[in-house]
Parts: sequence; structure tokens; C-alpha cells
Amino acid sequence: MKIGILGTGMVGATLGTKLVQLGHQVKMGSRTATNEKAAKWVKEAGANGTQGTFADASAFGEIIFNCTKGDGAIDAVKAAGADNLNGKILVDVSNALDFSKGMPPSLIPSLSNTNSLGEEIQRTIPGAKVVKAFNTMNCVLMVNPTMVASGAHDFFMCGNDESAKATVLEIIKSFGWESIIDLGDITGARTMEMLLPIWVRLMMKFGNPNFNFKIVK
Amino acid sequence: MKIGILGTGMVGATLGTKLVQLGHQVKMGSRTATNEKAAKWVKEAGANGTQGTFADASAFGEIIFNCTKGDGAIDAVKAAGADNLNGKILVDVSNALDFSKGMPPSLIPSLSNTNSLGEEIQRTIPGAKVVKAFNTMNCVLMVNPTMVASGAHDFFMCGNDESAKATVLEIIKSFGWESIIDLGDITGARTMEMLLPIWVRLMMKFGNPNFNFKIVK
Repeated sequence: MKIGILGTGMVGATLGTKLVQLGHQVKMGSRTATNEKAAKWVKEAGANGTQGTFADASAFGEIIFNCTKGDGAIDAVKAAGADNLNGKILVDVSNALDFSKGMPPSLIPSLSNTNSLGEEIQRTIPGAKVVKAFNTMNCVLMVNPTMVASGAHDFFMCGNDESAKATVLEIIKSFGWESIIDLGDITGARTMEMLLPIWVRLMMKFGNPNFNFKIVK
Repeated sequence: MKIGILGTGMVGATLGTKLVQLGHQVKMGSRTATNEKAAKWVKEAGANGTQGTFADASAFGEIIFNCTKGDGAIDAVKAAGADNLNGKILVDVSNALDFSKGMPPSLIPSLSNTNSLGEEIQRTIPGAKVVKAFNTMNCVLMVNPTMVASGAHDFFMCGNDESAKATVLEIIKSFGWESIIDLGDITGARTMEMLLPIWVRLMMKFGNPNFNFKIVK
């Protein structure tokens, strides 16, 4: 598939590399068309990796992954363009972390508890089919689930559109994930994003991000 | 030990019964000294179970468990009395759930994200040693961890006082818990209370509360 990625940080680069390895065509989008981190990624990605602006990436992709930082995500999605995103699947990977009071972070108040970044993005681009996914773990684990406990842990997702979730589910499974829990409509993003504070606290306690949540029944 | 319990609902009754079974003396506290639910519990609990007001329970206990509903917890703790709680361990089991917008609940805004009920209780009674514990699961599981996956799942706790946490840890272990994760000081209560929204969502999805979180490394 053709996939656009918003955000050239570690999350975007890691997901982009995995998607290229799986045979997808990936355009990495950033504020400027010539972003240096994206250029470095393109060089390593080979023929199926290209770069451009946020709008270039969203126009290119059949599916778009939002991998920007939480405090810039709404602006990035707006720059990607409602027209370019209309009718398409927008996978929201980002977290509205607020580091203004130091570590560990809290969530941006207006995007927590009774709202979430996933919902805010769906509200900003009503024509897109937003699927919240991948936000509850470290990016290395996102694309390599078996690195922890042979993959016996859980992947959470949610979104309003069932067929969009089914399509994203196939991509998640192609990464090696076996246990995926669908939390229902996009308001489930609140509950997924509220996992971050304990995730960060555990990361600080353990001294590494190589762990994940599992729901035990 | 002598233990006071604030709140005569299912959580307080279930914890109280387990504590009596383990040989502790338990006084169940409520708004009134003759609360009917507490009277019923006392009848079943036998000689080691008594009842009284919130203040009676906190004066009686060496350790006090707050099992009141989140929206009444601060008032209940105030009624229990700073003098009665001074220097004692106060185990806060409650969750600041806000059902005013229906199911699933959100958290009470002033007690979420950058604050928590655990912290607010610690701030309300500075002389108490508040330990947040037991709030991330159903009450039947609290006292019977092996009912799910032979007990192979996690119990979270936090608090400012190390010796208080060590004492509470012994009680938790006496219930059969084997994997207890100490999240540090009382600000960890934010992260524990923010687990509730996904817990409720999962409970609605599964149709029962017989599950728990496990951190897989």
C-alpha cells in the first residue's frame, strides 16, 4: 500500500522502516519538504521510501500514520490537509504528553480525561477515519512484539469506522502482533492515552522501555 | 491488628471480611453509628467485627482503609478526623469516578491528570501515611488474586512513607498477592487512578470484572 507518515522522529522512522520492509511505499512527511532527518531515512529506506511535506505525505498515502509529538499533532494534521485526508484511514500514534512540569509528564489538560488527542484529531478532520493505535508502547516494540515475552502481551486499538479498524488490524498483525484488543469507538482513545502516565513511571522505574501491558483473564 | 474501614459498600465489606478471616479486628465505619449495611456485615463477621462512625473506625484502627466512593471520599476522611488519623497508615482504595455523564465514567476533573484522590487525601490529612492500593481491580479479586490466571498478574501501590508501604505490603501478601509493583511516592496515585477508565471499558467489553493488568517484561 501507499502510506504517508506525519513526523520524522524515532516513532515515524521506525514505523516507516518496518512498512518499507514489508513492501509498502512510504512517504515521510514533515514541516518542510527537505527535512534532514527524513532525508537520512529516505537514503536508508531505498526505492520505496520518499519524503515531502505533511501535505505531500497525506496526499500520497492511502493510509496516513500520525507520529508527531502530541503538542504539535493538531497543527500537523491541519497542515496535512482535510482534503488530502478525506475518506482515508488516519492512524493516530501520538500522545498528548505535557513535559512543562518536568518528568514524569502529565497529559495536556484539554486533551485528557473527557477528551483525547485521538478524538480531537477526529473532530479536526471529520472526513478521516481515525484509528488510535500503537500509542501505548515504545516504538521498537511496536514493530517487533516478540522482543518481550515472545509477544504474549496486548495491543490496544479503537476508532469509529469498523472497516478502517479491520484494515489497520491487518497491518498490526503483519508486524507480528497476535493479541489485539478493540476498545470500541474513538472515545476509547481517552483510556489508551491515560495509560501513558503509568507507562512512563514504569519506564523510569525499570530503566528501560522493554515492557508492555497484558490483560490477564 | 486493629483495622478501621471507611465505607460500608461492597469494597469495604469484602476487604473487612477477608481481614477478619485473617485474624484482624475490624471496625466498619460509616456516616452513622448504626448503618444497616454495617450491622448486617457485623452479624456475619463474628466477634472480631464491629461498627461505628467514620471517627469511631479511624480512632479504633492502627491502619485505616478508605473504601468510600470517590465523590465522597474527602468528606469521609475529614469526618474520620485528622486527630484520629495522625501518624497512622491510611490505605486509599477509592477512585474519583465521575458518572455524571453516564457510562463509561470519566475521572472527576479536579482529581485527575495533575492530581489524584490519593494525593488529595494526603494533602487533607498531612499527618497520615497515605498508601494508594487495591484501586485497580474488582473487590472480589482484591482478596482472592488466584481467581485469575493463578495469581500471575500485578498489584500496584504507592505512597510517601516507606515503612507504611512495607506494612501494607505484608497485608497485601497475606491476601495471596505475589507480584506487587511499588510506583514510588503518592503522585503515583495519578497513574493508578488513570487505569480506571480502561478498566471500566474492558469490563463493559468482557461483560465481567474478572481480569487484571500484568506488566510483561
